[in-house]
Amino acid sequence: MSYVLGIDGGGSKTVCVLMDDSHQVLGCGEAGPSNYQSIGIEATLQSIESAIYSAVNEAVEITKFIRIEAICLGLAGISRLADIEVVKGLVKKLQNSQVLPIIWALQSFSIVICNDALIALVGGIGHNVGIVVAVGTGSIVLGRNHQGNTKRVGGWGYILGDEGSAYKIAVAGMQAALKAYDGREIATSLVESFKQHLNLTNIEDLIEVIYRRRWGVKQIAALAPIVDLAAAEGDKVANIIIDDAVKELVKATSTVIDTIFIPGSVLEVVTIGSVWQGRAKIHNRFATSIIQKFPNVKVIFPRYEPAYGAGLLALQSLDAK
Amino acid sequence: MSYVLGIDGGGSKTVCVLMDDSHQVLGCGEAGPSNYQSIGIEATLQSIESAIYSAVNEAVEITKFIRIEAICLGLAGISRLADIEVVKGLVKKLQNSQVLPIIWALQSFSIVICNDALIALVGGIGHNVGIVVAVGTGSIVLGRNHQGNTKRVGGWGYILGDEGSAYKIAVAGMQAALKAYDGREIATSLVESFKQHLNLTNIEDLIEVIYRRRWGVKQIAALAPIVDLAAAEGDKVANIIIDDAVKELVKATSTVIDTIFIPGSVLEVVTIGSVWQGRAKIHNRFATSIIQKFPNVKVIFPRYEPAYGAGLLALQSLDAK
Repeated sequence: MSYVLGIDGGGSKTVCVLMDDSHQVLGCGEAGPSNYQSIGIEATLQSIESAIYSAVNEAVEITKFIRIEAICLGLAGISRLADIEVVKGLVKKLQNSQVLPIIWALQSFSIVICNDALIALVGGIGHNVGIVVAVGTGSIVLGRNHQGNTKRVGGWGYILGDEGSAYKIAVAGMQAALKAYDGREIATSLVESFKQHLNLTNIEDLIEVIYRRRWGVKQIAALAPIVDLAAAEGDKVANIIIDDAVKELVKATSTVIDTIFIPGSVLEVVTIGSVWQGRAKIHNRFATSIIQKFPNVKVIFPRYEPAYGAGLLALQSLDAK
Repeated sequence: MSYVLGIDGGGSKTVCVLMDDSHQVLGCGEAGPSNYQSIGIEATLQSIESAIYSAVNEAVEITKFIRIEAICLGLAGISRLADIEVVKGLVKKLQNSQVLPIIWALQSFSIVICNDALIALVGGIGHNVGIVVAVGTGSIVLGRNHQGNTKRVGGWGYILGDEGSAYKIAVAGMQAALKAYDGREIATSLVESFKQHLNLTNIEDLIEVIYRRRWGVKQIAALAPIVDLAAAEGDKVANIIIDDAVKELVKATSTVIDTIFIPGSVLEVVTIGSVWQGRAKIHNRFATSIIQKFPNVKVIFPRYEPAYGAGLLALQSLDAK
């Protein structure tokens, strides 16, 4: 029996699963964030080590050691070769850890380092062919076909892209409110919604909130539900914003489908991220548009967690040896 | 003969003119920035004092004093009452200055504190009725009618608004380049333009430039000429971006006209800011659209500097007493 670790490392938490080669999850552990570009390498190492320790500890008696043959780390913000080298260094340090009750049996092919989108795809669908449409604070669409070719669209961050994301929906909502206030565009209930939610005397005070209090991307993105709710309640302007977001996500997804899949392919698109939970039925709008364009494509919610996807990818690295 | 000071305080420099009641400029001085929200009150005071000193020094023998009856300060970022109180405090400190060869004869009505858009309007047109369309890093449209009513549209900053601004043009250009690279939208010469200008191996490296090097709003806005040039050279995508910017500015200007001017009014719209200097004839496109909608409205370049406008407003405060 082979044992592997699957790690999902993000900006708010790190999740680790311990999995055997029958895809059974034997243990699961959580720890703090592990996006090393924000919090540094040492803190990232600690989070990952702690998540692994919890996962292993759940499965194995504390006095015993477990033999780990593969590891997959799916981390946010991993895109450049330089990032991968940094993570390889982290794995070396894990192998020297005095804390973990692990006998490491890793080989170069069984250390898988990838972006968090890929593990979300594999976990969300349950195998490694399909498309993930990840829409939270940011947005990215990633597909993988049977030949193992991947295609990514989006994921360019809040300034350069992230179309359809919570950040973009929130910003579009505030812009629309201010345009209505200026008299440039039609009236919208968003003016009152933002005033109420942010406790503003005047919608002009958005300037105070956004610039003088130096709100960050996540804080702004957290205002997206205001737009979502206004849309659900029938506000025309809010509905245009939601429809625009859907259009962008449909276009990005269509591009991935057209690029790496044969026309008419039967495949699944998994949606993950906070934006899909909205009350304005953004998931429905998206699924309806996709199925109209691609009748053989099914839009689903995730079957498993990204960390589970990382575990599957770790196991696959052993099959491929 | 009455003498007044007109001060134009911005993020990069402070300009002061010394003017008499026949609108003659007797002296002009320049100093460093004076946006107190960024650089602090002490540094702002120093810039303003230094600009005044240079202006007065140009006109008056160093041993003699000049009697100043009014002052107008048009400063960037002045919008709230709290800001005006801060600037009033600055004026008090100027009146106690040991450096300035000035006998102050200010009264409460002859201390005019306003936003930099208003002095740009008055300076640009040469009197205080009309509209200014200020489009640099940010964008704002401000109008003033014969009754003294003002209407502002835009000026909400780079996150909440600034439609048509250099920042928005630059960001739209980069987004379009990345969408073309993704295969989501039609090809554009902007991909090559940004690569060449920023010395990138791959257009993906925009992420490196914008996020990892933490480029600010001004640095990003300074990329707008890349989009402008591509548009001038016929690139379709770049031209759509420029046309969208023009549409936003026309809409904002139309809103100001419709709000405070009687239909058919003869009036002037002055355009100031870096965006109007572009090679893609954005000024022409704007003027053509405006004149189609409002045949009695003339789009002009500025007649005088904003500091001159501040001087005129200072003089007007004396007339109004």
